[in-house]
Amino acid sequence: MPIIELIAVLAVFQYLYFGYLVGKQRGISGLKAPAMTGHDGFERMYRVQMNTLELMIAFLPALMLAGQYWPAVVVAPIGAIYLVGRIIFCRAYATDPSTRGLGFMLSLGPIAVLLIMALLGAVLALVN
Amino acid sequence: MPIIELIAVLAVFQYLYFGYLVGKQRGISGLKAPAMTGHDGFERMYRVQMNTLELMIAFLPALMLAGQYWPAVVVAPIGAIYLVGRIIFCRAYATDPSTRGLGFMLSLGPIAVLLIMALLGAVLALVN
Amino acid sequence: MPIIELIAVLAVFQYLYFGYLVGKQRGISGLKAPAMTGHDGFERMYRVQMNTLELMIAFLPALMLAGQYWPAVVVAPIGAIYLVGRIIFCRAYATDPSTRGLGFMLSLGPIAVLLIMALLGAVLALVN
Repeated sequence: MPIIELIAVLAVFQYLYFGYLVGKQRGISGLKAPAMTGHDGFERMYRVQMNTLELMIAFLPALMLAGQYWPAVVVAPIGAIYLVGRIIFCRAYATDPSTRGLGFMLSLGPIAVLLIMALLGAVLALVN
Repeated sequence: MPIIELIAVLAVFQYLYFGYLVGKQRGISGLKAPAMTGHDGFERMYRVQMNTLELMIAFLPALMLAGQYWPAVVVAPIGAIYLVGRIIFCRAYATDPSTRGLGFMLSLGPIAVLLIMALLGAVLALVN
Repeated sequence: MPIIELIAVLAVFQYLYFGYLVGKQRGISGLKAPAMTGHDGFERMYRVQMNTLELMIAFLPALMLAGQYWPAVVVAPIGAIYLVGRIIFCRAYATDPSTRGLGFMLSLGPIAVLLIMALLGAVLALVN
């Protein structure tokens, strides 16, 4: 389904953009590789990228597997909520890490829903 | 093959559960984001989650690609060993990180086998 | 397309090999888990593995999705450049982290190209 694949591509683009913001913060911070600590702005953006990486390894399989068993018109909007959740998470974390809860739940929630849909789809396909 | 997709879904659920345990340890530790060090229980669970993330990026492609070339009845049980290996790894790491070897080998071993199966499958498909 | 899947399998093998080099450096360093800092050689190889993990979550979906819309004879060589870029990156980082730019661009560049191809493919499939 091209619409589901479009969501997957946009999630990867978003993630690479977060990586670009990390690189920018490294430049601002003056930290030299392999140092990963010592500048708050850099550490925050790195946590945004890492947290997104941590979720992507769940989001992408959940999205693709749910898309195999359920209509794209249901799966794609749930995937789109994840993309919005990540934007909210990134802005909140950069401003004040303690406010990251909403964006995190708007990212993790869609993943959980997609994963349950994939689970149901696979189990129903097995028993039928 | 729904059985292979079921293994993939279970691996993602297991990984998210490890992430939940990290969040619980952060609460116990009192560490505030973006801090990632300073409490042994938190650091250990974070390492479990990160190590699982590090393996998932190999496990999921290896599982799905092996499943394209080999019968699900062979591929799925190998994937199931990985899931058990991760449980053993998590328990060992939380108790004493120096005992993590067995669980690690029971996770990495199945990945190596699936990857070699995927390699053989792709190469044989190319030369045929 | 077996040739694209072969590139994917080789990327996973390469990544596991970097993980093996991290384990070797941990042995040399004498650092005990969960410690992740305190030895330059270990930190460098861990950064190589982590940077590869950070790119793999983008590379594998970009490769597979581009492969759905474009001929394997175009997609596979772009994927092969990524593999070479990672080798250059690993060698440069181990020698002198400040020289990692070329290998990084030779890894990120192919990912960006594949991702744009996947985006175009999905969008064209949607509008047609």
